[in-house]
Amino acid sequence: MTTFGIDLIHQAAARIRGKIVTTPLLSSPQLDELAGCRLLVKAENLQRTGSFKIRGALNKILSLTDAERARGIVAFSSGNHGQAVAAAAKQAGCRATIVLPATAPKIKIDNCRWWGADVVTYDPDTQDREDVGMKFVHEQGMTLVHPFDDHLVMAGQGTAGLELAEQAKEQGHTIDTLVLNCSGGGLSSGVVTAVNNASPGVQVFLVEPEGGEKMARSLASGQPERNPMGTHTLLDALSGPNAGAKPLEVLSQYPVTCLSASNQQALHAMAVAFRLLKIVVEPGGAASLAAVLNNPDHFRGKTVAIVCSGGNVDAAVFSRALSAR
Amino acid sequence: MTTFGIDLIHQAAARIRGKIVTTPLLSSPQLDELAGCRLLVKAENLQRTGSFKIRGALNKILSLTDAERARGIVAFSSGNHGQAVAAAAKQAGCRATIVLPATAPKIKIDNCRWWGADVVTYDPDTQDREDVGMKFVHEQGMTLVHPFDDHLVMAGQGTAGLELAEQAKEQGHTIDTLVLNCSGGGLSSGVVTAVNNASPGVQVFLVEPEGGEKMARSLASGQPERNPMGTHTLLDALSGPNAGAKPLEVLSQYPVTCLSASNQQALHAMAVAFRLLKIVVEPGGAASLAAVLNNPDHFRGKTVAIVCSGGNVDAAVFSRALSAR
Repeated sequence: MTTFGIDLIHQAAARIRGKIVTTPLLSSPQLDELAGCRLLVKAENLQRTGSFKIRGALNKILSLTDAERARGIVAFSSGNHGQAVAAAAKQAGCRATIVLPATAPKIKIDNCRWWGADVVTYDPDTQDREDVGMKFVHEQGMTLVHPFDDHLVMAGQGTAGLELAEQAKEQGHTIDTLVLNCSGGGLSSGVVTAVNNASPGVQVFLVEPEGGEKMARSLASGQPERNPMGTHTLLDALSGPNAGAKPLEVLSQYPVTCLSASNQQALHAMAVAFRLLKIVVEPGGAASLAAVLNNPDHFRGKTVAIVCSGGNVDAAVFSRALSAR
Repeated sequence: MTTFGIDLIHQAAARIRGKIVTTPLLSSPQLDELAGCRLLVKAENLQRTGSFKIRGALNKILSLTDAERARGIVAFSSGNHGQAVAAAAKQAGCRATIVLPATAPKIKIDNCRWWGADVVTYDPDTQDREDVGMKFVHEQGMTLVHPFDDHLVMAGQGTAGLELAEQAKEQGHTIDTLVLNCSGGGLSSGVVTAVNNASPGVQVFLVEPEGGEKMARSLASGQPERNPMGTHTLLDALSGPNAGAKPLEVLSQYPVTCLSASNQQALHAMAVAFRLLKIVVEPGGAASLAAVLNNPDHFRGKTVAIVCSGGNVDAAVFSRALSAR
């Protein structure tokens, strides 16, 4: 078994260089005042396909052999990963099949199709997405691009952390706290590894949807836990059913504090990002901002880095966020 | 009289370096398909204070003598310039008085005050903002930071064009068309000078609010023209009463095509930027995107650079844009 670490992330950065956006690290004095800390916001909503997911998908697909790519790839996803895999596959010139919950926002389904992928939907209340996806692996010899439980995917997501650490340094900041949205753990395991390498001892917070704290329970139990089937949240990008074993193994090496964000807190954070950062963030992408704004005692006076991980949100939900202020 | 040119813009870039955001140059394959051209979007809505205006304001204020700065500065503005001057003055440690129309969006008035500036309002239907502002110059010895009719301000705005040209080159693009929002002409005169220096012969389009085409008429007549008092538009950032003499002198050197954007077209462009770029753009900031989307024959197959010049928009107007789709 390969060991996950900073070397894999550096390799990923070299592999995907020039194929992704170096997203900006934003800040706002008004936001700092509101949050009571110095807040550095990595705007991965501005990434290709509207979320960080293209980083891991590209790193995985570009690591395949030509023969593997010729057989095609398959991905299951609450939406952002599917769209990213579809785009990455198109770029690499291979066929992609995306397995999506029938409840995914329409924008996410449409976007997968726009990139030329085949879309297959399933019922998240009664079917397991991994089972649906694995059928294509077993029957058609496709390669699964897992949304998080794969070192190459985790390493790709970690490149956001490399950029974040470098940009913070260029701007003259020393990050002492890192707050990350967490679902399966792909983003958080990669970014924690990269940022801790640049700023050893950085304090780590993970944020999950209220009522869907599968990683918090996994870190407590020492094994990957699942959310009960039928758990619904507006933070759909963080609504995957289970925590990843490989991400859990990485995250377990750090003293991590777990927080959660409610639907209402995420909507409020979206409105704050609209007003003070001028960016469009989806509910799941705003979880870390919501956690910082709603748990000020953890962050007062600190230099806090967060990742706004996605911006794929329907107009109706965004308008709801703006009117909820 | 000094001559305006690329040297002034390079000096401005050196003067304000590290004090502003290098905003990203964004693009989207889906947006390219919609527009029928390769579209490069300089996201100045992500700039400090939510618009490009801080570039010119900082360049002007940092060029003053200590004695001038001690007497304070004054600015009149439809909003974005005022906020930028307030922030730049705070950074330079000097007093600022901002003269705003009573009709400016509340967010713009609040933001000037947040930066510690004094705000004075006037009635745009009956009073001339320049007269109100000049009272402070004559009675209190303050320095006017003009929103556009000043070579130092124009040079500061031009730094956005330097960045744009460099980022396009890094991304492997050759800009052949430049489409810029225009009111007094500060942004457009600076950016045209910078981009034409990097890409000689670039084709230039200016976009004004429908019914308020003061620069188009100025270019036709050869002298700075005014909009009639009482002209209202949702594109408030482009609603200043007159074109600038100094910007006009610069813009007259280029073969410029003038277009206009309606309220409805701007709202639609804001919704497109929301959906495909994940950025918050105000109506006036979306004029160039609106013009590209609504005049496809001018741009088909070209590599087109635009500047989304601001993102200071009330939630109600933004929600209106999202529901107008």
